[in-house]
Amino acid sequence: MITRSAVSFAALALALASASSAAQPSGTTQALERNFDAMINPADQLAWLQQMSSAPNQVGSPHDKANADFELAMFKQWGWDAHIERFDVLYPTPISTTVELVSPAHVVLGGQEPAVPEDPSSSNTANALPPYVAYQGDGDVTAPVVYVNYGMPDDYDALAQRGIDVRGKIVLARYGGGWRGLKPKLAQEHGAIGCLIYSDPADDSYAEADVYPRGGGRPEAGVQRGSVADMPIYAGDPLTPGVGAVPGAKRLSREQAVTLLKIPTLPISYGDATKIIAALEGPLVTGKRRGDLGLAYHWGGTDAVKIHLAVKSDWSLKPVYDVIGMLHGSVYPDQWIIRGNHHDGWVFGASDPLTGQVALMSEAKALGAMYRQGWRPLRTIVYASWDGEEPGLLGSTEWAEQHGAELQQKALLYINTDSNGRGYFRAEGSHELQHFVNQAANDVADPKTGVSTAERGRAGILAAAYMGSEREEQDVVDAAKEGGDLPLGPLGSGSDYTAYLQHLGIASMNLGFGGENESAGSYHSVYDSFYHVTHFDDPGLQYGAALSKVVGRIVLRAADAPRVPARYRDFATTVSRYLTEIKKLEADQRDKDRTLADLRREGDFRLASSPTDPIVAPVDRGITPVFDMLPLENSVDHLKRAASAADAMLGREDSLPPATQARINASLAHIDELLLDPQGLPGRPWFKNLVYAPGTLTGYGAKTLPGVREAIEQRRWDDARTYIVRTAKVLEDYANRLDEATAMAGTTS
Amino acid sequence: MITRSAVSFAALALALASASSAAQPSGTTQALERNFDAMINPADQLAWLQQMSSAPNQVGSPHDKANADFELAMFKQWGWDAHIERFDVLYPTPISTTVELVSPAHVVLGGQEPAVPEDPSSSNTANALPPYVAYQGDGDVTAPVVYVNYGMPDDYDALAQRGIDVRGKIVLARYGGGWRGLKPKLAQEHGAIGCLIYSDPADDSYAEADVYPRGGGRPEAGVQRGSVADMPIYAGDPLTPGVGAVPGAKRLSREQAVTLLKIPTLPISYGDATKIIAALEGPLVTGKRRGDLGLAYHWGGTDAVKIHLAVKSDWSLKPVYDVIGMLHGSVYPDQWIIRGNHHDGWVFGASDPLTGQVALMSEAKALGAMYRQGWRPLRTIVYASWDGEEPGLLGSTEWAEQHGAELQQKALLYINTDSNGRGYFRAEGSHELQHFVNQAANDVADPKTGVSTAERGRAGILAAAYMGSEREEQDVVDAAKEGGDLPLGPLGSGSDYTAYLQHLGIASMNLGFGGENESAGSYHSVYDSFYHVTHFDDPGLQYGAALSKVVGRIVLRAADAPRVPARYRDFATTVSRYLTEIKKLEADQRDKDRTLADLRREGDFRLASSPTDPIVAPVDRGITPVFDMLPLENSVDHLKRAASAADAMLGREDSLPPATQARINASLAHIDELLLDPQGLPGRPWFKNLVYAPGTLTGYGAKTLPGVREAIEQRRWDDARTYIVRTAKVLEDYANRLDEATAMAGTTS
Repeated sequence: MITRSAVSFAALALALASASSAAQPSGTTQALERNFDAMINPADQLAWLQQMSSAPNQVGSPHDKANADFELAMFKQWGWDAHIERFDVLYPTPISTTVELVSPAHVVLGGQEPAVPEDPSSSNTANALPPYVAYQGDGDVTAPVVYVNYGMPDDYDALAQRGIDVRGKIVLARYGGGWRGLKPKLAQEHGAIGCLIYSDPADDSYAEADVYPRGGGRPEAGVQRGSVADMPIYAGDPLTPGVGAVPGAKRLSREQAVTLLKIPTLPISYGDATKIIAALEGPLVTGKRRGDLGLAYHWGGTDAVKIHLAVKSDWSLKPVYDVIGMLHGSVYPDQWIIRGNHHDGWVFGASDPLTGQVALMSEAKALGAMYRQGWRPLRTIVYASWDGEEPGLLGSTEWAEQHGAELQQKALLYINTDSNGRGYFRAEGSHELQHFVNQAANDVADPKTGVSTAERGRAGILAAAYMGSEREEQDVVDAAKEGGDLPLGPLGSGSDYTAYLQHLGIASMNLGFGGENESAGSYHSVYDSFYHVTHFDDPGLQYGAALSKVVGRIVLRAADAPRVPARYRDFATTVSRYLTEIKKLEADQRDKDRTLADLRREGDFRLASSPTDPIVAPVDRGITPVFDMLPLENSVDHLKRAASAADAMLGREDSLPPATQARINASLAHIDELLLDPQGLPGRPWFKNLVYAPGTLTGYGAKTLPGVREAIEQRRWDDARTYIVRTAKVLEDYANRLDEATAMAGTTS
Repeated sequence: MITRSAVSFAALALALASASSAAQPSGTTQALERNFDAMINPADQLAWLQQMSSAPNQVGSPHDKANADFELAMFKQWGWDAHIERFDVLYPTPISTTVELVSPAHVVLGGQEPAVPEDPSSSNTANALPPYVAYQGDGDVTAPVVYVNYGMPDDYDALAQRGIDVRGKIVLARYGGGWRGLKPKLAQEHGAIGCLIYSDPADDSYAEADVYPRGGGRPEAGVQRGSVADMPIYAGDPLTPGVGAVPGAKRLSREQAVTLLKIPTLPISYGDATKIIAALEGPLVTGKRRGDLGLAYHWGGTDAVKIHLAVKSDWSLKPVYDVIGMLHGSVYPDQWIIRGNHHDGWVFGASDPLTGQVALMSEAKALGAMYRQGWRPLRTIVYASWDGEEPGLLGSTEWAEQHGAELQQKALLYINTDSNGRGYFRAEGSHELQHFVNQAANDVADPKTGVSTAERGRAGILAAAYMGSEREEQDVVDAAKEGGDLPLGPLGSGSDYTAYLQHLGIASMNLGFGGENESAGSYHSVYDSFYHVTHFDDPGLQYGAALSKVVGRIVLRAADAPRVPARYRDFATTVSRYLTEIKKLEADQRDKDRTLADLRREGDFRLASSPTDPIVAPVDRGITPVFDMLPLENSVDHLKRAASAADAMLGREDSLPPATQARINASLAHIDELLLDPQGLPGRPWFKNLVYAPGTLTGYGAKTLPGVREAIEQRRWDDARTYIVRTAKVLEDYANRLDEATAMAGTTS
């Protein structure tokens, strides 16, 4: 481990003399990338996919370990300096699971998903996890059932308006609308004693696709497994927040681990859910809150329908195995470009995660071959195959926590992928990387059409906008129309970048293809199989190869360029847009508060109450105050000016003395760490990034400028005022760092 | 029959001296209305409803005639000058209907709807019409099936983008999205040889309500009958457009009657439709084009599914019986206030039309009693119980055509109702009547809440807008927020006002309550029964009584006021809004045309085509030109100025000499006739009103300023240019008439 000041300026100068501008790959770089592309072989990926998905590979399974060992052997064979790093984490596994209708009749529900004759994997479930959600709370309860739609806060508002409460009851929530774990969490907060989660056909079956195996849609008996840990509080091993789960680590007791839920929870199929919903009484569910089962939905809550739900788990520690491979940098060995994808699945994991994992392996094979041919990256390339992503980003988070200080010194970039499928290139990430990502997408051909993946992306956005389907945000449509860079989405959570971006402040991106795959219908079920992937998600793994080519370019360019290419005005413009959104959110929320007050005063809800769906007025939560946003406005304004100046300076960087360039690059290399606040976000100090976070009430979905945005949304007015100032501070620090770098050029040229 | 110039100014002056301002009912009027209200008895309505819906009462049935005879007897008993007027119209009845699956297996579909044990009417179907649609084209065909969603133009665009055509095939359309008759019409225009129409549960069953008899939603075997005549061309008897269908009338041959369709068409249940849709092949139907059956929808079109469809009808003339009652005016016997509702149903017709019809009867009973007590209306009140509305507005249209010249001299106002149910007061009509209608709604209490029906209407709009459900247009929400008059909707078609407003130019309105009834689920089926109405649509007929009170006020005030109260600025403002809409339509359409041209040039649709739903680019239909809207803008500007001046003048009318008042009122009495153009609308000269018409491609839904709006929408550029000028002319004539009336006050006061 070295300190930043120890970087050898002489070595840097040498490297810069031989490296070209990152923005436009030089002839040498193009040759390198052609060489790389020639070694990306979808047949390799198919073979690895078939082998690695041939048996259940969830955490702790023999095949999960076998896959890690196989990858280690391959990395070594390909010339990488590789090893396995093990962590011992809390990972519960089911001892017994019971879900059965008690009223109106006794009907046993649940159990393993049945085989589909066309799909050979689906009968190979001897070592498979039954339908289960990790980190639920064991228990044995019998109670009436309340349908809660997605089980999100506005659904509980709808229930309250109908006088239905879930205290002492079991909620039946459908998947979707937010992170899985929020469903039992919000249920227990509202007093429920159990939770069932089912996959409604509206969301991933016949409303969207033909049912498996005719198409990729979820069959009637398909069940989505998953984690329900309260990961918006912290990711990783529930017992070791902030530190690696290694021998001797300080571990919390289970009782102390706030990310563990308290009530028994199981996932069920829509075949089973139909038997429950058909019998529910109470007011009718209409509009967007009903799903697509072919019957009337009711909220329930009466004794007409009772469920017995019982879960007992083995709460012992289990090992996770991260495979770590390195190609050491020739000039900057202590500047790391990290690229990861997990290898554990819920059952066979063919699509999730192995479609992404085999793309990573293709890249590693090609890079290893190039290395053996004599190519040496300037920087160190780290390839990571994470274990335990599914239960809670375990492998990636424990590694990040174990090596946190070193990573904050060395890691310049974290590149993540996960499931991949046919369709459109999609990217989220730190916004100063937006142009860099788009350049790579511009340089890789879409397998289906032959145009660049970026060009196809623009065509897809414009055609969809014209047809009126799945319309993107207007800024995305405008960007597509102009033919320019497509905006990166912000990173929330749901994959292994979380610890890197949001806990350590390392610039990150998450990449993949999708939109024409049908893997939603097999997601986390036994049907996520080689057969499903090769028929419905990415036949021939053509998009697996395309992913390797995009990621490979980004790795190569980041590893070999004078600096990781960044365009700071993209970040500044995006943050400015987020601030505009928050100001609109505040104003709209205040308007809505005022409207509610007016309507309550006039008794309009009582007057409007319907005989078939009598409702009462929503609770009065007061009026959203006007906040002093000036600190944020000033810092964003400074950020925009500083970013423009820095970009302009970097545009003429080639003309600066090598030593000056080296100083500038060192100054900017870890600028994203300035977005961290040591106290972190309110109620969740592990999440320290004040620009990007998963929402506490979305889980997957990002909340940008989260300290401020969520405080306003959740009506924590004091937090809003505090985090306006704290967020302004980190943006100001970021802008100041840009100014410093710009000044370095001015004083030395 | 007298000419307008023969109005006795002396008599008018006498009347005016004793009559008060219409805007605020005088004490005398209020006493009259209290007396009227006291005689409105929901028990009467329940008894009549039970009797009149006790047997099938479609056109030509014995019970239809019996109901007319019963009403005639009651009108006479109540003191009305009443008679039955008979017309002989083309009205086909089924001799045989066949619909059966031929492939993939032989399954007989169709047939009469089964009884529901709870509903005694539903087993009394010996004389009931089987599932059938009137004015379809007889035939016997066997062919593959194509699902066409609502069967509207954009659905055919979607089919074309998927390379599916319906030539030589049978289309399966679902109800909704536009007038029933457009489905077979557009099908035959696209080359289909047969048409099935089914009721998808998304539209009137379990997605919206519990299924009958648990709730009012359409049961699996429920079928919607109806007319499929091409009524946007002309209403009424297909053989006698423009003239009454009386003995000796010139009749077209069936071949000459363009409103008759050419292909066999039958309605079916969603139980039957499920058997067809489950077997269809071809691309998947997703998004809004699929319904809510619990399975994947496909477009079909292959030989996998074939249907045998055969219909044979009796095309003889049948009688329709209009019951006409009059209370003659004491001062202006030749000024008629007409109020109508039809009495024929498709089966028992309890909701449609008898909920409205029994309200009309309540009013007639009360008015008759008041008449016997000595009250005499200033103007003549005409109550009409129409026959034959269901197949094609037959009774109302033939009476309007037979008496057209007299009506254009005498009729000041046509007030229509049809089905009625619990919920919110709703009104459409000629916009100078907006304030008049709102005043009546302000003066009647909502039966459920006790506040005025207008107040409850405003509460409903505001609560729905807050909750984000069924949001109304912003102008309606704004009006509700301000507590002012709620905007009238424009009249399209679908009930008996059509001939009066759109053929004769008589100011019209259509009134009713609804939104909390569940009659959509029984609509035009055997389940539209007394049981259904009294359980799910208007238990106790409380809203029937409320309707009588609103309509009774309008009738009394229109009959007794110095003039039918009008506020012309409401009309002018509304027309101005329509012009703004059309300019936006033109600009948006041009933008969309340009976008399509760009996307086609770039090949974006080809690039965006999905492997699961390959589509080609929409057809290039050229670029919408810029139209010279100045004639319309000038006439609307004139209209707004003239309306304000006229309203101001009418506000001080009381101070004018009676003879002047009489001249002013005579000048304005038939001002709506100025909106007629003798040539009528392009391709449908029977529709002469250039402000209000049913859309040729909506059928029920109104198109305002239709000559211009539809020409732009349908890309008939020359028609658009012609009708900009013609529409400007009628608006200019209307404005000039207002100016003339205003000038009368100025020159005589």
